[in-house]
Amino acid sequence: MRIALVAGLLLPFSCHSFALWNGPLSPSSTSCASSSSATDTDTSLDATTVNGEECVKTVDVLSLESIRSTLIRQEETIIFALIERAQFRRNAIAYKRGGFGDLGTPLGSKENDNKELCLFEYMMVGTEVLHSSVRRYTSPEEHPFFPDRLHLKQMDAMPQLDYPNLLDETAANVNFNPILLEKYIHVILPAITKDGDDEQHGSSILADIALLQALSKRVHYGKFVAESKYRSDPQEYQQLVEAGDADGVMRLLTNEKVEQKVLRRARLKAATYGREPLLAELPPMSEKMGSHTTSVVAAAAASAVVAAVEALEDEPGQKGKVDPAVIEAVYKKIIIPMTKDVEVAYLFRRCGREPPADYAPDRMSRDVTEL
Amino acid sequence: MRIALVAGLLLPFSCHSFALWNGPLSPSSTSCASSSSATDTDTSLDATTVNGEECVKTVDVLSLESIRSTLIRQEETIIFALIERAQFRRNAIAYKRGGFGDLGTPLGSKENDNKELCLFEYMMVGTEVLHSSVRRYTSPEEHPFFPDRLHLKQMDAMPQLDYPNLLDETAANVNFNPILLEKYIHVILPAITKDGDDEQHGSSILADIALLQALSKRVHYGKFVAESKYRSDPQEYQQLVEAGDADGVMRLLTNEKVEQKVLRRARLKAATYGREPLLAELPPMSEKMGSHTTSVVAAAAASAVVAAVEALEDEPGQKGKVDPAVIEAVYKKIIIPMTKDVEVAYLFRRCGREPPADYAPDRMSRDVTEL
Repeated sequence: MRIALVAGLLLPFSCHSFALWNGPLSPSSTSCASSSSATDTDTSLDATTVNGEECVKTVDVLSLESIRSTLIRQEETIIFALIERAQFRRNAIAYKRGGFGDLGTPLGSKENDNKELCLFEYMMVGTEVLHSSVRRYTSPEEHPFFPDRLHLKQMDAMPQLDYPNLLDETAANVNFNPILLEKYIHVILPAITKDGDDEQHGSSILADIALLQALSKRVHYGKFVAESKYRSDPQEYQQLVEAGDADGVMRLLTNEKVEQKVLRRARLKAATYGREPLLAELPPMSEKMGSHTTSVVAAAAASAVVAAVEALEDEPGQKGKVDPAVIEAVYKKIIIPMTKDVEVAYLFRRCGREPPADYAPDRMSRDVTEL
Repeated sequence: MRIALVAGLLLPFSCHSFALWNGPLSPSSTSCASSSSATDTDTSLDATTVNGEECVKTVDVLSLESIRSTLIRQEETIIFALIERAQFRRNAIAYKRGGFGDLGTPLGSKENDNKELCLFEYMMVGTEVLHSSVRRYTSPEEHPFFPDRLHLKQMDAMPQLDYPNLLDETAANVNFNPILLEKYIHVILPAITKDGDDEQHGSSILADIALLQALSKRVHYGKFVAESKYRSDPQEYQQLVEAGDADGVMRLLTNEKVEQKVLRRARLKAATYGREPLLAELPPMSEKMGSHTTSVVAAAAASAVVAAVEALEDEPGQKGKVDPAVIEAVYKKIIIPMTKDVEVAYLFRRCGREPPADYAPDRMSRDVTEL
């Protein structure tokens, strides 16, 4: 009974995610992948059943209706990835050109003026070469960090995917990864890692790559958010863009309340995921609901209370491995402003204009130098 | 004051991790990486400072003293990765040879009899080629899934790393990845994912790879665990091995109590990380410790109570996206038995004998077919 009282308050993870850069779909495949004829106006997320297998189509998942739940689900991925990277030291040598001598160029990448790569860049380029070979970067959600290093022609051999035709066709030109990468190395990394070197360079870089890909997806989701906002008020956006009023566009798309909610949620999630939920000794699971249950429940609740109080406090204290305030700051100073910059840049193009220089991919509207 | 009462109970994340397949270390590097002269008997984890930078050496991190905290920290990585994979459907086509036609061979891999690769294998081989090029698989913690596809000679150009000389030199021959991969595809994946296809094949496979690498590291950590156990009782292990008594070795290395603790911890972590900690509306963080604090704390505590009760219950109900009982079962039926199989195989070699056929890498001591 006690469970029923509180269970209604819980927000379970979204079942659907936009994390869908897909493998190639063969039209002749026997899977259900090629069987639906959903169009871009069909935004129902109901799974259909083909040959007894439940299927969800990309065109359905990638609908404007799913934006909110997708962004919420992405918070888990981002916060997990921040916690994973934070277990390693800064390891500055991995980001330094020549730190390990001349590494050459990853197989399959373009040489690009023979500019020497640091170990991090080497791994990131190599990863993007591999992912692009199965066409990651044909998804409207996905953006490479090193497009100049990729032979996009590798993908020609594979069949086209059926993506919904939601975004303006100029959207692909909006790629804010250059500034994201710079802010990641110079602002986020120093904030989430301890100074120094632990020699765990490979593991650190893999954690970087997972985190950067998650952050990139999140900020470029601004395109879908912007499209959704545009559709609710096309005239107003058109007028502001035609008047070249970028600040006006920014004001119109800003929703303070939602931003505050995102920040609070990020902080509490960070506090919860960033520490062990466990305390003292737990009784065996088989003695369920017996006399030991109370102590398990009390211990878990106590842990949650500490996490919640820490999330509310500003004073540094005994915190989890990533300070929840730092994760909140990543959202406040990097993710949210960059998402909104992407939105402004997208809306200008959507309304037929070049975005102003302030909203170019090589700068952010706020010049954050530390968290 | 209330915080102080419960804070002492919390186990914060371990600061050190064994997740260290390293980037190449240049002896002439200016980083602190090459400055210590630690030996394999120096197991202190204190960081030294060189040129003002704190340094932790591989030989220190990879010490037997760190095993417990490392294994606990790996639980986060594994459970995060399970939750990440569980957001996508089964996507069986990605694991089916010819599912997308002939994908060819990833750049830089060996052709290996022209055996056709499924999309998952293509991505896994491509990832291992990239990682091996910066010498991931020279670390005693790391084991490739497709060693026959790797040109290990690629690594010759890079300097050798200073790994501690902890394990018996035959340890590298113990690679249980073939059976791990089989159990992953046929037992774990069906248990953690919903049936069907959501076209998110690329994202699913990246989640698979991160999870498999974490699982592989965890089960092969059995080598370090076994070495530690051997050192505490070398005669007894030697006698049992010389008598060919694998069951005796298994009994001697088994610690039921520790296993039960691992299972309970895994289940509660799964229940905590697998759902959103957040409930209803949170007040702004700036009004900290004010009248709103109580509701945040109460909400977080309520969420934790639900997670703890669910973790104790066996009845299926409103659970997080991965059933905590399933994650516990992954530990109980796959991770723990496979780790112990690795331990037995290692201990036989450590004592100069070939392990019995039951402990070969292509089978598990328990023939688990479902969770």
